[in-house]
Amino acid sequence: MKAIVPFKRAGAKSRLKRLLTLEEREKLALMMLKDVLTALSRSMIDRIEILATGGGFVEELKVRDIEVRYDDRDLNDALNTAISVQDQPVLIIMADIPLVTPESINEMINRNEDVIVSPGRRGGTNAMLLRKPSLFSVSYYGISCIAHLERALLCNMSCGVHDSFFMSVDIDEVEDLVELLIHGKNTHSARYLNDIGLRLHANKGSKTRVDVVR
Amino acid sequence: MKAIVPFKRAGAKSRLKRLLTLEEREKLALMMLKDVLTALSRSMIDRIEILATGGGFVEELKVRDIEVRYDDRDLNDALNTAISVQDQPVLIIMADIPLVTPESINEMINRNEDVIVSPGRRGGTNAMLLRKPSLFSVSYYGISCIAHLERALLCNMSCGVHDSFFMSVDIDEVEDLVELLIHGKNTHSARYLNDIGLRLHANKGSKTRVDVVR
Repeated sequence: MKAIVPFKRAGAKSRLKRLLTLEEREKLALMMLKDVLTALSRSMIDRIEILATGGGFVEELKVRDIEVRYDDRDLNDALNTAISVQDQPVLIIMADIPLVTPESINEMINRNEDVIVSPGRRGGTNAMLLRKPSLFSVSYYGISCIAHLERALLCNMSCGVHDSFFMSVDIDEVEDLVELLIHGKNTHSARYLNDIGLRLHANKGSKTRVDVVR
Repeated sequence: MKAIVPFKRAGAKSRLKRLLTLEEREKLALMMLKDVLTALSRSMIDRIEILATGGGFVEELKVRDIEVRYDDRDLNDALNTAISVQDQPVLIIMADIPLVTPESINEMINRNEDVIVSPGRRGGTNAMLLRKPSLFSVSYYGISCIAHLERALLCNMSCGVHDSFFMSVDIDEVEDLVELLIHGKNTHSARYLNDIGLRLHANKGSKTRVDVVR
């Protein structure tokens, strides 16, 4: 099965501004992409296409065996064009979920529904498997995981929800880095954060609260 | 297999103060417990013990087929006493994870490791299966999911991590209610929140952000 990984480097992850410089955020985005590609390469996925959106040629993406498609439009337009020509099942998976495991990807692939959605926090869609991609159209932003399930029903497609914590952790805000540092010991992204001096800090109180500091 | 569900009603969920009165928070805590008990009763779990901590007799807990143990000490002391006398495997599962599914509980039960941890956000342990409970001791608070895995290794027990988004969502803060309202359509807890007027609100921006309002 083929995976499409949308990726935006330029100005990536602006909500991490408080802790990371622009250069560091772009580097982190690249490390997270690397983690997602590693998980994909260890799963049943056998073809990967990176959909580079938001402008800017990305030299580091020229890696073996990976196709890169450039599209400067927004995520929905770029993805809908990309899937409109796919006559085989496709897994759309976000580039900012570095904790994702090959096992979890395989579980999605082994299910039977036409549309399988793996939610992120706040209603996002962090991964979505489409059996008939050219008959579907995506709509990210807002509570997209529910929108995608509703769209499947409208299209008379069967659908299901994949239940994965590690897929749900997309790295957008500083508090998400806490998850990456706790669970990501073997990821490129967490190692990079350690290298530039980020670490966990436990504020002892009646209930200990864990934060990330630099 | 037996499940132990720690439950604290008195003064429950103080971090939801901004949106809910004390009475509403205690009611919500009870509804969430009900959701967890429902999931357990539909899983391979065949015995349930509620461990009522933090004082106060809870009339509503007198339900058929469920044992209730009262212990006024803190969570760790109460749980460690409870598991010290268990000679059969036990699942410890929190009462504030109303999105938990029977399928996810069964997946934990069907694994082989001695200790299986299901993480919550910020390093919590939202469910933990212990094959040899009397040889283990729990330590909640802080980054307990890592502490529990390390303790397993120290005790020469095999261990693993169970990867479930719906188990990871413990309802502590207002933003957690967003998850409950998005995914909890069939839960007692989300219906209760709807009944008292809570609803999702999408703030449109460059990226839509979803919040809960009253």
